[in-house]
Amino acid sequence: MADQSEIEEGLGFAPQFGADGLVTAVVTDAKSGDVLMVAHMNAEAVAKTIESGEAWYYSRSRKKLWKKGESSGHIQRVVELRVDCDQDALWLKVEQQGAGACHTGRRSCFYRAVPLGKGGAVTLEFRDAEKAFDPGKVYK
Amino acid sequence: MADQSEIEEGLGFAPQFGADGLVTAVVTDAKSGDVLMVAHMNAEAVAKTIESGEAWYYSRSRKKLWKKGESSGHIQRVVELRVDCDQDALWLKVEQQGAGACHTGRRSCFYRAVPLGKGGAVTLEFRDAEKAFDPGKVYK
Repeated sequence: MADQSEIEEGLGFAPQFGADGLVTAVVTDAKSGDVLMVAHMNAEAVAKTIESGEAWYYSRSRKKLWKKGESSGHIQRVVELRVDCDQDALWLKVEQQGAGACHTGRRSCFYRAVPLGKGGAVTLEFRDAEKAFDPGKVYK
Repeated sequence: MADQSEIEEGLGFAPQFGADGLVTAVVTDAKSGDVLMVAHMNAEAVAKTIESGEAWYYSRSRKKLWKKGESSGHIQRVVELRVDCDQDALWLKVEQQGAGACHTGRRSCFYRAVPLGKGGAVTLEFRDAEKAFDPGKVYK
Protein backbone atom coordinates (compact mmCIF):
# COMPACT_ATOMS: atom_id res chain seq x y z
CA MET A 1 0.00 0.00 0.00
CA ALA A 2 1.19 3.47 -0.93
CA ASP A 3 2.22 5.82 1.86
CA GLN A 4 0.23 8.94 2.72
CA SER A 5 2.47 11.36 0.84
CA GLU A 6 2.31 9.24 -2.32
CA ILE A 7 -1.50 8.97 -2.00
CA GLU A 8 -1.88 12.73 -1.58
CA GLU A 9 0.77 14.13 -3.92
CA GLY A 10 1.51 11.28 -6.32
CA LEU A 11 0.04 10.55 -9.73
CA GLY A 12 -0.65 6.89 -9.08
CA PHE A 13 -4.37 6.15 -8.90
CA ALA A 14 -4.84 4.03 -5.78
CA PRO A 15 -8.46 4.25 -4.59
CA GLN A 16 -8.61 3.63 -0.84
CA PHE A 17 -11.56 1.29 -0.59
CA GLY A 18 -13.08 0.99 2.89
CA ALA A 19 -13.58 -2.19 4.89
CA ASP A 20 -16.76 -2.64 2.81
CA GLY A 21 -14.73 -2.46 -0.41
CA LEU A 22 -16.29 0.84 -1.44
CA VAL A 23 -15.37 4.46 -2.11
CA THR A 24 -17.83 7.36 -2.04
CA ALA A 25 -18.84 8.86 -5.39
CA VAL A 26 -20.22 12.40 -5.57
CA VAL A 27 -22.05 13.13 -8.80
CA THR A 28 -22.60 16.67 -10.05
CA ASP A 29 -24.29 18.04 -13.15
CA ALA A 30 -21.49 19.21 -15.42
CA LYS A 31 -23.50 22.25 -16.52
CA SER A 32 -25.26 23.50 -13.39
CA GLY A 33 -22.79 22.25 -10.81
CA ASP A 34 -25.66 20.89 -8.70
CA VAL A 35 -25.06 17.72 -6.75
CA LEU A 36 -27.27 15.07 -8.34
CA MET A 37 -26.55 12.13 -6.04
CA VAL A 38 -24.11 10.40 -3.75
CA ALA A 39 -23.37 6.76 -4.49
CA HIS A 40 -20.71 4.14 -3.90
CA MET A 41 -18.28 2.26 -6.12
CA ASN A 42 -16.36 -0.96 -5.71
CA ALA A 43 -13.20 -1.65 -7.72
CA GLU A 44 -15.18 -3.10 -10.61
CA ALA A 45 -17.49 -0.08 -10.79
CA VAL A 46 -14.47 2.24 -10.83
CA ALA A 47 -12.81 0.24 -13.63
CA LYS A 48 -15.98 0.07 -15.74
CA THR A 49 -16.61 3.80 -15.31
CA ILE A 50 -13.07 4.68 -16.41
CA GLU A 51 -13.14 2.32 -19.40
CA SER A 52 -16.63 3.21 -20.63
CA GLY A 53 -16.91 6.88 -19.65
CA GLU A 54 -20.36 6.06 -18.26
CA ALA A 55 -21.18 5.81 -14.57
CA TRP A 56 -21.28 2.44 -12.84
CA TYR A 57 -21.93 2.05 -9.12
CA TYR A 58 -22.28 -0.60 -6.46
CA SER A 59 -25.64 -0.81 -4.72
CA ARG A 60 -25.28 -1.42 -0.99
CA SER A 61 -28.96 -2.34 -0.62
CA ARG A 62 -29.12 -4.69 -3.61
CA LYS A 63 -25.51 -5.83 -3.10
CA LYS A 64 -24.72 -5.67 -6.78
CA LEU A 65 -22.90 -3.73 -9.46
CA TRP A 66 -25.23 -1.54 -11.50
CA LYS A 67 -24.94 0.75 -14.44
CA LYS A 68 -26.75 4.01 -13.80
CA GLY A 69 -29.68 4.10 -16.21
CA GLU A 70 -29.86 0.36 -16.80
CA SER A 71 -33.52 0.36 -15.70
CA SER A 72 -34.52 3.96 -16.36
CA GLY A 73 -32.45 4.74 -19.44
CA HIS A 74 -31.11 7.72 -17.49
CA ILE A 75 -27.46 7.06 -18.20
CA GLN A 76 -24.72 9.39 -16.92
CA ARG A 77 -21.96 10.31 -19.37
CA VAL A 78 -18.87 11.22 -17.35
CA VAL A 79 -17.34 14.51 -18.46
CA GLU A 80 -14.63 14.53 -15.81
CA LEU A 81 -13.60 12.20 -13.02
CA ARG A 82 -11.57 13.43 -10.08
CA VAL A 83 -10.16 11.84 -6.93
CA ASP A 84 -9.69 13.57 -3.60
CA CYS A 85 -6.56 14.07 -1.52
CA ASP A 86 -6.75 10.80 0.41
CA GLN A 87 -8.22 8.91 -2.56
CA ASP A 88 -11.28 7.61 -0.72
CA ALA A 89 -13.78 9.75 -2.63
CA LEU A 90 -14.45 10.35 -6.32
CA TRP A 91 -16.16 13.29 -8.00
CA LEU A 92 -17.97 12.64 -11.27
CA LYS A 93 -19.06 15.59 -13.38
CA VAL A 94 -21.71 14.11 -15.64
CA GLU A 95 -24.11 14.84 -18.43
CA GLN A 96 -27.30 13.31 -17.08
CA GLN A 97 -29.23 11.63 -19.88
CA GLY A 98 -32.99 11.58 -19.52
CA ALA A 99 -35.08 13.50 -17.06
CA GLY A 100 -33.35 12.98 -13.75
CA ALA A 101 -30.94 11.13 -11.49
CA CYS A 102 -33.18 10.33 -8.53
CA HIS A 103 -35.34 7.21 -8.28
CA THR A 104 -38.12 9.40 -6.80
CA GLY A 105 -38.47 11.20 -10.13
CA ARG A 106 -36.51 14.34 -9.31
CA ARG A 107 -33.57 15.67 -11.26
CA SER A 108 -31.41 15.56 -8.10
CA CYS A 109 -31.68 13.44 -4.95
CA PHE A 110 -31.23 16.64 -2.91
CA TYR A 111 -34.74 18.11 -3.15
CA ARG A 112 -35.19 19.13 0.50
CA ALA A 113 -33.41 21.85 2.47
CA VAL A 114 -32.66 21.84 6.19
CA PRO A 115 -33.38 25.28 7.71
CA LEU A 116 -30.38 26.72 9.54
CA GLY A 117 -30.10 28.60 12.80
CA LYS A 118 -32.58 26.52 14.76
CA GLY A 119 -32.18 24.02 17.56
CA GLY A 120 -34.48 21.12 18.35
CA ALA A 121 -36.75 19.35 15.85
CA VAL A 122 -36.20 20.35 12.25
CA THR A 123 -38.83 20.56 9.52
CA LEU A 124 -37.49 20.19 5.99
CA GLU A 125 -38.47 22.46 3.11
CA PHE A 126 -38.97 21.23 -0.43
CA ARG A 127 -36.53 22.86 -2.85
CA ASP A 128 -36.37 22.06 -6.60
CA ALA A 129 -38.65 19.14 -5.76
CA GLU A 130 -40.88 19.04 -8.84
CA LYS A 131 -40.94 15.62 -10.48
CA ALA A 132 -38.97 15.44 -13.70
CA PHE A 133 -40.37 12.02 -14.59
CA ASP A 134 -42.88 9.48 -13.33
CA PRO A 135 -40.96 6.74 -11.54
CA GLY A 136 -43.94 4.39 -11.84
CA LYS A 137 -43.64 4.52 -15.62
CA VAL A 138 -39.84 4.52 -15.83
CA TYR A 139 -39.13 1.64 -13.43
CA LYS A 140 -41.12 -1.36 -14.58
CA MET B 1 -37.65 4.61 12.76
CA ALA B 2 -39.58 6.27 9.94
CA ASP B 3 -40.63 4.12 7.01
CA GLN B 4 -39.08 4.55 3.57
CA SER B 5 -41.91 6.65 2.14
CA GLU B 6 -41.76 9.04 5.10
CA ILE B 7 -37.97 9.29 4.78
CA GLU B 8 -38.16 10.04 1.06
CA GLU B 9 -41.25 12.20 0.78
CA GLY B 10 -41.80 13.55 4.29
CA LEU B 11 -40.66 16.79 5.86
CA GLY B 12 -39.30 15.22 9.03
CA PHE B 13 -35.51 15.47 9.21
CA ALA B 14 -34.33 11.99 10.20
CA PRO B 15 -30.68 11.52 9.19
CA GLN B 16 -29.99 7.84 8.61
CA PHE B 17 -26.67 7.41 10.38
CA GLY B 18 -24.74 4.29 9.40
CA ALA B 19 -23.47 1.57 11.73
CA ASP B 20 -20.54 3.92 12.42
CA GLY B 21 -22.93 6.69 13.49
CA LEU B 22 -22.07 8.87 10.49
CA VAL B 23 -23.64 10.37 7.39
CA THR B 24 -21.71 11.55 4.35
CA ALA B 25 -21.36 15.30 3.84
CA VAL B 26 -20.61 16.72 0.39
CA VAL B 27 -19.32 20.28 0.47
CA THR B 28 -19.52 22.56 -2.55
CA ASP B 29 -18.46 26.15 -3.10
CA ALA B 30 -21.68 28.19 -3.16
CA LYS B 31 -20.33 30.41 -5.93
CA SER B 32 -18.43 28.12 -8.29
CA GLY B 33 -20.35 24.91 -7.59
CA ASP B 34 -17.06 23.01 -7.32
CA VAL B 35 -16.89 20.16 -4.86
CA LEU B 36 -14.48 21.26 -2.13
CA MET B 37 -14.42 18.14 0.04
CA VAL B 38 -16.26 15.06 1.26
CA ALA B 39 -16.47 14.60 5.00
CA HIS B 40 -18.57 12.85 7.62
CA MET B 41 -20.91 14.00 10.35
CA ASN B 42 -22.22 12.37 13.49
CA ALA B 43 -25.45 13.55 15.16
CA GLU B 44 -23.63 16.20 17.17
CA ALA B 45 -21.87 17.62 14.10
CA VAL B 46 -25.21 17.83 12.29
CA ALA B 47 -26.85 19.62 15.23
CA LYS B 48 -23.96 22.08 15.66
CA THR B 49 -23.90 22.84 11.93
CA ILE B 50 -27.65 23.57 11.88
CA GLU B 51 -27.55 25.70 15.00
CA SER B 52 -24.43 27.71 14.13
CA GLY B 53 -24.64 27.88 10.33
CA GLU B 54 -20.97 26.90 10.26
CA ALA B 55 -19.67 23.50 9.27
CA TRP B 56 -18.81 20.90 11.90
CA TYR B 57 -17.66 17.37 11.05
CA TYR B 58 -16.57 14.16 12.68
CA SER B 59 -13.04 13.01 11.94
CA ARG B 60 -12.86 9.26 11.41
CA SER B 61 -9.06 9.26 11.71
CA ARG B 62 -8.89 11.41 14.84
CA LYS B 63 -12.17 10.01 16.20
CA LYS B 64 -13.41 13.40 17.28
CA LEU B 65 -15.81 16.19 16.48
CA TRP B 66 -14.13 19.13 14.77
CA LYS B 67 -15.15 22.51 13.54
CA LYS B 68 -13.84 23.16 10.05
CA GLY B 69 -11.28 25.94 10.36
CA GLU B 70 -10.56 25.43 14.07
CA SER B 71 -6.84 25.00 13.28
CA SER B 72 -6.52 26.81 9.96
CA GLY B 73 -9.06 29.60 10.41
CA HIS B 74 -10.61 28.40 7.15
CA ILE B 75 -14.17 28.29 8.44
CA GLN B 76 -17.08 27.31 6.18
CA ARG B 77 -20.22 29.43 6.39
CA VAL B 78 -23.15 27.28 5.29
CA VAL B 79 -25.34 29.02 2.71
CA GLU B 80 -27.66 26.09 2.20
CA LEU B 81 -27.95 22.61 3.67
CA ARG B 82 -29.80 19.84 1.85
CA VAL B 83 -30.53 16.20 2.54
CA ASP B 84 -30.88 13.47 -0.06
CA CYS B 85 -33.79 11.13 -0.78
CA ASP B 86 -32.83 8.40 1.69
CA GLN B 87 -31.44 10.92 4.19
CA ASP B 88 -28.01 9.31 4.49
CA ALA B 89 -26.14 12.13 2.76
CA LEU B 90 -26.02 15.89 3.25
CA TRP B 91 -25.03 18.60 0.79
CA LEU B 92 -23.53 21.80 2.19
CA LYS B 93 -23.20 24.81 -0.08
CA VAL B 94 -20.63 26.95 1.68
CA GLU B 95 -18.73 30.19 1.57
CA GLN B 96 -15.22 29.00 2.21
CA GLN B 97 -13.41 31.49 4.43
CA GLY B 98 -9.67 31.76 3.93
CA ALA B 99 -7.64 30.33 1.11
CA GLY B 100 -8.84 26.78 0.80
CA ALA B 101 -10.63 23.71 2.12
CA CYS B 102 -7.95 21.06 1.69
CA HIS B 103 -5.31 20.27 4.30
CA THR B 104 -2.77 19.95 1.46
CA GLY B 105 -3.13 23.67 0.74
CA ARG B 106 -5.45 23.48 -2.25
CA ARG B 107 -8.78 25.23 -2.55
CA SER B 108 -10.49 21.86 -3.15
CA CYS B 109 -9.50 18.32 -2.17
CA PHE B 110 -10.22 17.23 -5.75
CA TYR B 111 -7.05 18.46 -7.50
CA ARG B 112 -6.34 15.40 -9.63
CA ALA B 113 -8.28 14.00 -12.58
CA VAL B 114 -8.57 10.38 -13.63
CA PRO B 115 -8.25 10.05 -17.43
CA LEU B 116 -11.18 8.23 -19.01
CA GLY B 117 -11.39 5.65 -21.76
CA LYS B 118 -8.39 3.61 -20.70
CA GLY B 119 -8.02 0.18 -19.17
CA GLY B 120 -5.22 -1.02 -16.91
CA ALA B 121 -3.00 1.21 -14.77
CA VAL B 122 -4.14 4.80 -14.54
CA THR B 123 -1.93 7.87 -14.20
CA LEU B 124 -3.60 10.87 -12.59
CA GLU B 125 -3.35 14.40 -13.98
CA PHE B 126 -3.10 17.48 -11.77
CA ARG B 127 -6.05 19.82 -12.28
CA ASP B 128 -6.54 23.11 -10.36
CA ALA B 129 -3.71 21.86 -8.16
CA GLU B 130 -1.90 25.10 -7.39
CA LYS B 131 -1.46 25.69 -3.66
CA ALA B 132 -3.75 28.36 -2.23
CA PHE B 133 -1.94 28.42 1.09
CA ASP B 134 1.10 26.92 2.80
CA PRO B 135 -0.12 24.12 5.07
CA GLY B 136 3.14 24.23 7.03
CA LYS B 137 2.37 27.77 8.10
CA VAL B 138 -1.37 27.36 8.64
CA TYR B 139 -1.31 24.16 10.71
CA LYS B 140 0.99 24.68 13.67
